[in-house]
Amino acid sequence: MRISELVGQTGVPLATLKFYLREGMLMPGVAVSVTRADYGEEHVRRVALIRALSDVAGLPLQRVKTVLGLIDAPSGSLFDSLGSAVAALPPYADGPPVDGADYPRARAALEALGQVYDPRFAAVAQLERALVGVEAAGIPLSPDRLAVYGEHVRAMAEFDLSRMPDDGRESQLGYAVLGTALYEPVIAALRRLAHQDIAAQRLAASPDARA
Amino acid sequence: MRISELVGQTGVPLATLKFYLREGMLMPGVAVSVTRADYGEEHVRRVALIRALSDVAGLPLQRVKTVLGLIDAPSGSLFDSLGSAVAALPPYADGPPVDGADYPRARAALEALGQVYDPRFAAVAQLERALVGVEAAGIPLSPDRLAVYGEHVRAMAEFDLSRMPDDGRESQLGYAVLGTALYEPVIAALRRLAHQDIAAQRLAASPDARA
Repeated sequence: MRISELVGQTGVPLATLKFYLREGMLMPGVAVSVTRADYGEEHVRRVALIRALSDVAGLPLQRVKTVLGLIDAPSGSLFDSLGSAVAALPPYADGPPVDGADYPRARAALEALGQVYDPRFAAVAQLERALVGVEAAGIPLSPDRLAVYGEHVRAMAEFDLSRMPDDGRESQLGYAVLGTALYEPVIAALRRLAHQDIAAQRLAASPDARA
Repeated sequence: MRISELVGQTGVPLATLKFYLREGMLMPGVAVSVTRADYGEEHVRRVALIRALSDVAGLPLQRVKTVLGLIDAPSGSLFDSLGSAVAALPPYADGPPVDGADYPRARAALEALGQVYDPRFAAVAQLERALVGVEAAGIPLSPDRLAVYGEHVRAMAEFDLSRMPDDGRESQLGYAVLGTALYEPVIAALRRLAHQDIAAQRLAASPDARA
């Protein structure tokens, strides 16, 4: 298809598609003449993936580029690539990781959960920031909340790992990186809906509370 | 304290604090002379909350204002306020809710979980968008993943509701709104760390996999 048709199929404006092409986020079409290139289904899928990472996962375009780069040109181990992908996800640290930096809230939480505390892993700094956030709101993470969340989050993570594809490195990497980034909004939406469902059941049980 | 000291205590630049004041997100200080106002600990806490909502939860400032407005000037029921707060959270729908809009992926998921499907609730459209995202990445929500996530997310949500404070409406509202928004990054970071922990254990068990 022509690029104008790609606009129609994806709903993404021409200028934005040209930007994706220039930035190397979208692979070039097949040149069919000096002025025309041909695009296919893989371009439609790629544009959908870029939009998912930017609009749904909320990544700025430079971070989308980083994540796509990790999937397109894998280097290092699966474990290391997953670490680099996590570093591209919010909440963002204020600067590059500092040698010898300490994250006391995250360290205490990981120790309580019996997990390794490795400050080089980006999610440690992210957990620290998130814990500063709940403290600022006056609802710090209590030991009992940590125990409940830790147990249920780990059960979901075990499921995720159990479904890791076994048809090769590239497919595993895509699953690990995109599954981490794109299932977070699913989990958040399910939690919001569970809150509403439980609250609605209680309202129905005691109509006075609706006042 | 003077506003310059508030800059020092919060690490937020003066121009930004003045913006928060102008927008009504930060309450005015107590005027002690024509040119000087006095700020206290409640201002420090409020600035920390604004930063948590913008930097950690990732809300644009206009959405932060919406969320703070819901807490500051409660109107309607707790249930309705929570609904309005959820609408201020990402992922954002492309426009205002459309009457009669249908969200087929979210509807199927909620039916499978035995929860009410009410398209007026913002989290339904958010779940739909999130599910479009995982489809775009080639990892659509399977029935078994939905069952596992649904069970564990609900257990966390039950815990959240069980810890709802009972010292008045305003405090409940703050807990519901801020607990929804600010615990999402905590849960996301815990999940990333659980992935890493489980993967590291497997690597240790089979060193060949490190290659």
